[in-house]
Amino acid sequence: MKDAMYIPTYQDMLAAHERIKPHIRRTPVRVSDYLNELSGAQLFFKCENFQEPGAFKVRGAANAVFGLDDAQAAKGVATHSSGNHASCLSYAAMLRGIPCNVVMPRTAPQAKKDIVRRYGGVITECEPSTSSREETFAKVQAQTGGDFVHPYNDPRVIAGQGTCAREFIEQVDGLDAVVAPIGGGGMISGTCLTLATLAPQVQVIAAEPEQADDAYRSFKAGHIIADDAPKTVADGLLVPLKDLTWHFVRNHVSEIYTASDAEIVDAMKLAWKHLRVVLEPSSAVPLAVILKNPQAFAGKRVGVIVTGGNVDLDKLPWIQGAFP
Amino acid sequence: MKDAMYIPTYQDMLAAHERIKPHIRRTPVRVSDYLNELSGAQLFFKCENFQEPGAFKVRGAANAVFGLDDAQAAKGVATHSSGNHASCLSYAAMLRGIPCNVVMPRTAPQAKKDIVRRYGGVITECEPSTSSREETFAKVQAQTGGDFVHPYNDPRVIAGQGTCAREFIEQVDGLDAVVAPIGGGGMISGTCLTLATLAPQVQVIAAEPEQADDAYRSFKAGHIIADDAPKTVADGLLVPLKDLTWHFVRNHVSEIYTASDAEIVDAMKLAWKHLRVVLEPSSAVPLAVILKNPQAFAGKRVGVIVTGGNVDLDKLPWIQGAFP
Repeated sequence: MKDAMYIPTYQDMLAAHERIKPHIRRTPVRVSDYLNELSGAQLFFKCENFQEPGAFKVRGAANAVFGLDDAQAAKGVATHSSGNHASCLSYAAMLRGIPCNVVMPRTAPQAKKDIVRRYGGVITECEPSTSSREETFAKVQAQTGGDFVHPYNDPRVIAGQGTCAREFIEQVDGLDAVVAPIGGGGMISGTCLTLATLAPQVQVIAAEPEQADDAYRSFKAGHIIADDAPKTVADGLLVPLKDLTWHFVRNHVSEIYTASDAEIVDAMKLAWKHLRVVLEPSSAVPLAVILKNPQAFAGKRVGVIVTGGNVDLDKLPWIQGAFP
Repeated sequence: MKDAMYIPTYQDMLAAHERIKPHIRRTPVRVSDYLNELSGAQLFFKCENFQEPGAFKVRGAANAVFGLDDAQAAKGVATHSSGNHASCLSYAAMLRGIPCNVVMPRTAPQAKKDIVRRYGGVITECEPSTSSREETFAKVQAQTGGDFVHPYNDPRVIAGQGTCAREFIEQVDGLDAVVAPIGGGGMISGTCLTLATLAPQVQVIAAEPEQADDAYRSFKAGHIIADDAPKTVADGLLVPLKDLTWHFVRNHVSEIYTASDAEIVDAMKLAWKHLRVVLEPSSAVPLAVILKNPQAFAGKRVGVIVTGGNVDLDKLPWIQGAFP
């Protein structure tokens, strides 16, 4: 299962769902007549921000943690993450009672650091670049012997994330498309994995910040393009595609749309106001691209995965104008 | 039904539920392990802020609007309200296609005025006092002939609000208590009405701002005490009890607890952070009193009605320190 070239299967997703069900929530779906009128589409928002640690990443993390044999579990897990994977892996490790070491950029929102520590995760800070992150992680992993649970390029993680789309299809009939944010591509890959078998007629569409549009450029170029240290208000989407997630993006994603930081912040505020749900900037990118590309979504039934809701409530981007 | 002395019955609530079901949402219940640990209780938050117009008041408003005969419906409805009743009555009237006139304090949050206008409600502003509100309303009502739907002292409204507790009991087993904010007492009365028959073992507990604690003082004194123009961050709870709601408060409420504005704002921020739900200050009063009185709630299964989520996102009380 841990060979990077192993492509997770629909059966892996089903097994993951059985494994993690006691540890995750079946999150509800929100609708807003107002946002439907505004977009011209029927939008369904699956609130993964309502998972206890505030993000969908608890699905993949719990699948990895609860799939470990006892010998490896004793040494715990380790990872690097811009935030939600770190807190969700810490949370899953806490549930199983095993150690969790995480490398996080020093610039990650304080709310995300707080939540990792609340769940007993041990943080080592790095610079906010892919290169510094990977270098720092190698040291931490060597010291602890923790099992490396990559935030997205891990078949266990992708199979876990795929369980969200399974619930979504059970909860909402007749979806034409599912839109999710894309950073490293874990949620998009899991969504592709599940829908390719369960509902192949449903398009998978990725939404990405213009200021970290490496997946969009990769998709158009036909090979992985990675940027070091992009800057965007959508702080959960800074990382590049890797081989496993590229496999799913290349083969199953219908389209990738991008939105500017200003559009993302506008969409975030709209969602808070009309869904009355606290979602983080990264999770507002799908609504931003839907509103920006009405011709692509008009008249359709569109599922949106609200990926997370961990926000510094003292630093809201529309109040401080503080996004990069 | 419209005689002020008519006390609505359990059958009225059941009839209201059938009448309004096509027009309201069966709102979900949120839990947070973190808030459970913090409070020492098992808390269940019923998210009435997820109703389309953002508040439970759509239940009573829809019951009144859809119960009108055609002759009265042609003249529409009219009311006075500090906010959510106005928007919810406008929304219900829009759904039926009839006029709605509302008197609102000029100091009501802009978000609440915007939402009334979005639903086609016509606003006449008054001063932020009970006396000015009632005087202005009499003029508006005389001019329009709209059926007066009082925000809470109306059996149709109370029966409608009672449908929330019915859903809550269906959704959560073994509740020991339900806590809701108290202003005029409409939601508390509807909750008493329903639980007295459906689940009489469940305590009904009211939560009130210290700075507008007229219901608390009425409850202790044994008769209605009304203040003119109290000031609190909980802007939905400024109005006094009236005869119908006093009937239910006096006969069925177990206790009323109060919280300071600072405690309400702290609870509001906690709820946004850990439930990841946008609730307004008035709706944070129950969590504030639960955290303030752990001895009353420890070890219990406590339902909390999250009454509304209409907030000026540019004026959050913890950022500006702007509460009265």
